[in-house]
Amino acid sequence: MNIKLVIEYDGTAYHGYQIQENAHTVQAELEKALRVLVKDDFVLYCAGRTDTGVHAMGQVCNFKSCDLRVEVENLRDALNSMLPEDISIKEVSKVEESFNSRYSAKKRVYRYVIFNGLTRNAIGSRYSWFVRDRLNLEAMKEASEYLVGHKDFKAFTDASYPDITERDVYYINIYREKDYINIEICANAFTRSMVRNIVGTLCEVGRGKREAQDMQSILNSRDRQKAGICAPSKGLFFVRTEY
Amino acid sequence: MNIKLVIEYDGTAYHGYQIQENAHTVQAELEKALRVLVKDDFVLYCAGRTDTGVHAMGQVCNFKSCDLRVEVENLRDALNSMLPEDISIKEVSKVEESFNSRYSAKKRVYRYVIFNGLTRNAIGSRYSWFVRDRLNLEAMKEASEYLVGHKDFKAFTDASYPDITERDVYYINIYREKDYINIEICANAFTRSMVRNIVGTLCEVGRGKREAQDMQSILNSRDRQKAGICAPSKGLFFVRTEY
Repeated sequence: MNIKLVIEYDGTAYHGYQIQENAHTVQAELEKALRVLVKDDFVLYCAGRTDTGVHAMGQVCNFKSCDLRVEVENLRDALNSMLPEDISIKEVSKVEESFNSRYSAKKRVYRYVIFNGLTRNAIGSRYSWFVRDRLNLEAMKEASEYLVGHKDFKAFTDASYPDITERDVYYINIYREKDYINIEICANAFTRSMVRNIVGTLCEVGRGKREAQDMQSILNSRDRQKAGICAPSKGLFFVRTEY
Repeated sequence: MNIKLVIEYDGTAYHGYQIQENAHTVQAELEKALRVLVKDDFVLYCAGRTDTGVHAMGQVCNFKSCDLRVEVENLRDALNSMLPEDISIKEVSKVEESFNSRYSAKKRVYRYVIFNGLTRNAIGSRYSWFVRDRLNLEAMKEASEYLVGHKDFKAFTDASYPDITERDVYYINIYREKDYINIEICANAFTRSMVRNIVGTLCEVGRGKREAQDMQSILNSRDRQKAGICAPSKGLFFVRTEY
């Protein structure tokens, strides 16, 4: 049986998704709960290895097993009863053998939340980045258009990232809801810190410190130093994966 | 000078608003910051003394001073620079001598947030009560109508509360937003735990464990034992005060 999980978590307390020695990670919590219910050995795949402090509404994982201690239809509630309050299994389903939550993913959607009010927010501060300067949304939207398409995002990637940095960005939606600004990015995949580096740079455009058209020369430079700051992880949400 | 503050806080870490010995309270944090900026002695009044774990978007306070170390227009930012991240001063203004944030208040609005999804929410769990059974909103709305008007809320008040329990409830709005149910109550004032006891009872109606018309006999009984459970404080928000 190939089993797919859709998972929500509050990343505040975690050193990211991926299991590491001596660190509190989402994957470690998931595997600990799964080991109680799955008798055979398993490998847990995931759609996106989120960084320290990043949240998820729609992380997708899968594993294969032929020996569960509970029926698949009871697995969701059984797992939730063992998991900490900041991780919740939203859906469990049996999927076809060939499905892999990581390799079968066609599109991934991340949302970044900025609180752009006059004074910092006390409620929800763990779920947003407070930017005090009033941001020019139109300039940010114009800047974001340079990033849509098949591009090399090396300038928006951690310098230590060893792999290819070309990605397909399908859309970037930027919209205001009261004092909040949401930046939603859909791509085939993301390089390390790509969303946060893009958001930090877009905010510099929104503040008037850079021009929208500077995005093109930043992309062309393939130089992380040319892009803006990395926005803090607490405002970032892994929203969903499309297969 | 009579100075009015509008304050937002995340109540999770606090033993309520009101100052107490050996307890972490919102008022203690506010007074500590104010004492740096206000040279003369002051009394800090507030519109509502929220309980342990209750949040506020619109707590209103006031104090009188004739000797501030900063201009009134800089007080908001000066206070925010000293306050912890979970308390934020949203507005500071000079008001007329006769204004008192507690005694001048005409209406207070509280909102209670229930998460009524199929599995618990990991994101925002500190701001909502997870109720798993699908709630019947129409029955809850019908039940809430018995509580609107000038009524004695003794049955919905902590048994230890020593004062008069008659209040004027102006409206109760119950509405769904995706998996969330909001219950907004506006009244001239509230007795101790009144909103949470009402919400707990309305949920029992929503679950089908009580009939909507039972609200009348609960009110008539003036007996706390006859009402439902007290909903947890983390779902409660003090939204605003009208003067």
